[in-house]
Amino acid sequence: MNLMAIHGSSREQGNTETLTQIVLKDVPATHLYLRQYVINPITDERHDPHGFTPVDDDYDKLIEKVILHDTILFTTPLYWYGMSGLMKNFIDRWTQSLRDPRYDFKEAMRGKQAYVIVTGGEDVRLKALPLIQQFTLIFEFMSMDFNGYLLGYGGKPGGIVRDEQALAEARQLNDRIKQSL
Amino acid sequence: MNLMAIHGSSREQGNTETLTQIVLKDVPATHLYLRQYVINPITDERHDPHGFTPVDDDYDKLIEKVILHDTILFTTPLYWYGMSGLMKNFIDRWTQSLRDPRYDFKEAMRGKQAYVIVTGGEDVRLKALPLIQQFTLIFEFMSMDFNGYLLGYGGKPGGIVRDEQALAEARQLNDRIKQSL
Amino acid sequence: MNLMAIHGSSREQGNTETLTQIVLKDVPATHLYLRQYVINPITDERHDPHGFTPVDDDYDKLIEKVILHDTILFTTPLYWYGMSGLMKNFIDRWTQSLRDPRYDFKEAMRGKQAYVIVTGGEDVRLKALPLIQQFTLIFEFMSMDFNGYLLGYGGKPGGIVRDEQALAEARQLNDRIKQSL
Amino acid sequence: MNLMAIHGSSREQGNTETLTQIVLKDVPATHLYLRQYVINPITDERHDPHGFTPVDDDYDKLIEKVILHDTILFTTPLYWYGMSGLMKNFIDRWTQSLRDPRYDFKEAMRGKQAYVIVTGGEDVRLKALPLIQQFTLIFEFMSMDFNGYLLGYGGKPGGIVRDEQALAEARQLNDRIKQSL
Repeated sequence: MNLMAIHGSSREQGNTETLTQIVLKDVPATHLYLRQYVINPITDERHDPHGFTPVDDDYDKLIEKVILHDTILFTTPLYWYGMSGLMKNFIDRWTQSLRDPRYDFKEAMRGKQAYVIVTGGEDVRLKALPLIQQFTLIFEFMSMDFNGYLLGYGGKPGGIVRDEQALAEARQLNDRIKQSL
Repeated sequence: MNLMAIHGSSREQGNTETLTQIVLKDVPATHLYLRQYVINPITDERHDPHGFTPVDDDYDKLIEKVILHDTILFTTPLYWYGMSGLMKNFIDRWTQSLRDPRYDFKEAMRGKQAYVIVTGGEDVRLKALPLIQQFTLIFEFMSMDFNGYLLGYGGKPGGIVRDEQALAEARQLNDRIKQSL
Repeated sequence: MNLMAIHGSSREQGNTETLTQIVLKDVPATHLYLRQYVINPITDERHDPHGFTPVDDDYDKLIEKVILHDTILFTTPLYWYGMSGLMKNFIDRWTQSLRDPRYDFKEAMRGKQAYVIVTGGEDVRLKALPLIQQFTLIFEFMSMDFNGYLLGYGGKPGGIVRDEQALAEARQLNDRIKQSL
Repeated sequence: MNLMAIHGSSREQGNTETLTQIVLKDVPATHLYLRQYVINPITDERHDPHGFTPVDDDYDKLIEKVILHDTILFTTPLYWYGMSGLMKNFIDRWTQSLRDPRYDFKEAMRGKQAYVIVTGGEDVRLKALPLIQQFTLIFEFMSMDFNGYLLGYGGKPGGIVRDEQALAEARQLNDRIKQSL
């Protein structure tokens, strides 16, 4: 296995990343912190006669790394009951990759194993469900396998360490991932 | 009534805006096209001892216009089964407004009438449902009234004019909004 | 077209049926009122060595009528944010039909056009969404086409006639269905 | 704590009950197996001038036991992406209890702790989400606290014992429940 974690949080070492570290303990992984890069919102030129205009930002070099991995873990705090805008901009740009003649993006993503880790407020296990449904549709469209998700209650900074349920599930997901190495 | 339409599309005169024009025919409205502004992704500093650092972009002046209206119509194409990253970044920044000492943002938004207009691919009436559920949670949190939503099938540019169901619903929503003027 | 309406309401001439009558105005249809029949809850014997025990109730003769139609309209009031128990018992029994050697039930249902009509309380357009998602999964499993749904606000008996939006959508769905005749 | 488990499965000792036994290990509990009782579908007479006609079945004596407990665990296999018809009929009858002059049903249910356990096929962690959303709405309406849910992959009879993730989550929920005793 060849795992990449794509981190959507705007905060260094927030609850989502703490939880992810437990999930990835002793697992070799490439980490991509979206906040460290410039990723513009998409300009939808799908139907433009000249197609997409090349964009001068970091997106292309990042997506070229993503397709080299066969397991992708998406981590994001629950911002307004969805993924962070940082991560949404990144995924929106997939539309551009789908039309990029340099590679067959859809074929490259097909069959990748996907995991989702989300932390949020008190009712995260209920209020993150539309986001999990959104990821289900995204992975279905890309023919990726949605292998599991983990929802944790962070609240204040560091609060995740008091969510025993999330910690236990994270350790277990760690076992599952290590077994598949 | 005092209506603002917040447009999340990256494309000028796309299907979402065409559908919105029918909804707002003969309705005085302020239009805010997010693509015309610079709105940075949020950096979550909620728990920073110094609070949020002021951001040098267009967000503040836009949100100050939003709170002057009592009806807000959110329009977005369905990008990857969610609102556009442009719109998500805008809403993510509400977290900053919630802590802005210059106004009581939550109080200012309370009771506003909200509408959502989404266009997307063939199954938009099914695949946009997690997004509608996300908006439901957003409006609940802000004590706004979710008065209605409209889902249209755009497909190719201009395709919305062939979705008779969406057009009829748009005309009817137009009637409803005019009656409430 | 060869249409059957399966009615899940326990009440004669309730809001759901009133709304359905508008949808089916001038449309020849077979009506099946589940409340008029005895349909036992399923006893799951899928894995029993002898398979399902024949059940002495009305289910078999009803499902044999269903498969003769190519368009099925499911109508139910929103009871506790789901379909009525009457309708749920009927659909649960499909599990038995899937193993009935007398016909290939899955093949018989494949490609049928499905519609769903639901009436409920004030927030029905938001609170019926999990039910629409459930029907989406049911129809996907059976390879049926989910052609449309209609949500109406009934409230008190007869209240549906004041939901202008639902009435307009019902008339429009009526047009769509008549055109496909 | 004073716990009741309401079992919606039609099968004795199915996967859902096996999983529930782990959750309730060493926890004193009253078990109510709905399949052992006669519970008619509701006939909605809310708006009948004479109100609900008394029904000659087991419902009343069961609901009178339910209200004596302060923690309620709902267990059901995922039948057609929803709760079993048996359980749906039971909950549908709550409408009748809400109008029963012998007790204030809504007040009696307020504040009860609720848990949901569901087992289903391979994608149960994704495909049971509309059901979890439905329970969320049910508990919100009744002012009950939705304390947790557990989704397990059963597949064939006995298959649940191979879902390590569900077993670990069940043991952990068992700990949580014992601590609250």
